[in-house]
Amino acid sequence: MSDAIVFWFDFSSPYSYLASELIDTLAVKYERKVKWRPIMLGAALKATGGKLLTDIPLKGEYSLRDFDRSARFYGVPFRFPSKFPQITLAAARAYYWLHGQDCAKAREFARAVFRALWVDHKDVSDINVIGELAASLGIDRAQLEVAVADPAIKEKTKQETDAAIAQGMFGAPFFLVDGEPFWGADRLPQIEKWLQTGGF
Amino acid sequence: MSDAIVFWFDFSSPYSYLASELIDTLAVKYERKVKWRPIMLGAALKATGGKLLTDIPLKGEYSLRDFDRSARFYGVPFRFPSKFPQITLAAARAYYWLHGQDCAKAREFARAVFRALWVDHKDVSDINVIGELAASLGIDRAQLEVAVADPAIKEKTKQETDAAIAQGMFGAPFFLVDGEPFWGADRLPQIEKWLQTGGF
Repeated sequence: MSDAIVFWFDFSSPYSYLASELIDTLAVKYERKVKWRPIMLGAALKATGGKLLTDIPLKGEYSLRDFDRSARFYGVPFRFPSKFPQITLAAARAYYWLHGQDCAKAREFARAVFRALWVDHKDVSDINVIGELAASLGIDRAQLEVAVADPAIKEKTKQETDAAIAQGMFGAPFFLVDGEPFWGADRLPQIEKWLQTGGF
Repeated sequence: MSDAIVFWFDFSSPYSYLASELIDTLAVKYERKVKWRPIMLGAALKATGGKLLTDIPLKGEYSLRDFDRSARFYGVPFRFPSKFPQITLAAARAYYWLHGQDCAKAREFARAVFRALWVDHKDVSDINVIGELAASLGIDRAQLEVAVADPAIKEKTKQETDAAIAQGMFGAPFFLVDGEPFWGADRLPQIEKWLQTGGF
């Protein structure tokens, strides 16, 4: 099996959510694994002087329309949340804590966070919401709440974002396939061609 | 036949060039016409506080790679110009002058400008280069040079950009299909689905 695809995402990014619903199926088709890596998009935007899409005149209004339409295009359930943006640092820290113990459970948790935010209108910046989600997946809620306050887990989460920026990540979703960078859910067709042909 | 697709572009935008090589074929397939409308992207970026892609840290380097790769993905010839960006105001004015007389000739001219810039490394900000290109298509070069300095043509070109911004255009390429806005060459698959299904 060839190298795993790196998938950098922010739970708070709608295009990251859309990509999260599609990338594993695509990877399996070409016998690849995917490394899910939540990052803090805010830190990446600082590095590039970027802004939150929905805050930009004209582009913001278009984006809201494009999120919905892209979700319909991909056949992914989507409802723009009543609270946006949401600070997803606790969710990312919980992910890395889980990932240190059980990769599959961490991915299950990540999917649940994405859907809570992008389908069910939950406030995933609330540690109680994260705790409930985790408990519903059989994860020890009390342990999770301790873990997200653990300095080592905090540092790990920060380092993952820093490492991603050092490798050229400036937006989300962002993929590395055999070292080739792809930005945006709309690059999935190019990723597929890359996997099909071994690079083009 | 249903309404024409509006195609707003800047000659200086690489993704506009890629889209220009693809949109007519797509439109013909669904029995649509395309209205080609050059605009001044600089004015649109002012409206949104946007920057030239290639000037943005990290994003700029990625973009150069993505232009090339996207061209290969679409099978469109592409060589990033030695001079970039180029001021394409004269080319846009010449287009609107031609368009007032002969739509087909104006489109032929637009394609020639795009290829001169994005394949042949020509400096299309130079009125002499534009004049030569026009002459090679049987257009009266002296008349064209007078036209691009005509206040009425200048005003027409400005108005087209203002009208596009008023309709929500903030980047290029930008399309309107039955009033639905699509931004970017990477939205062509969504445009195709829209044309196929009559909206989704």
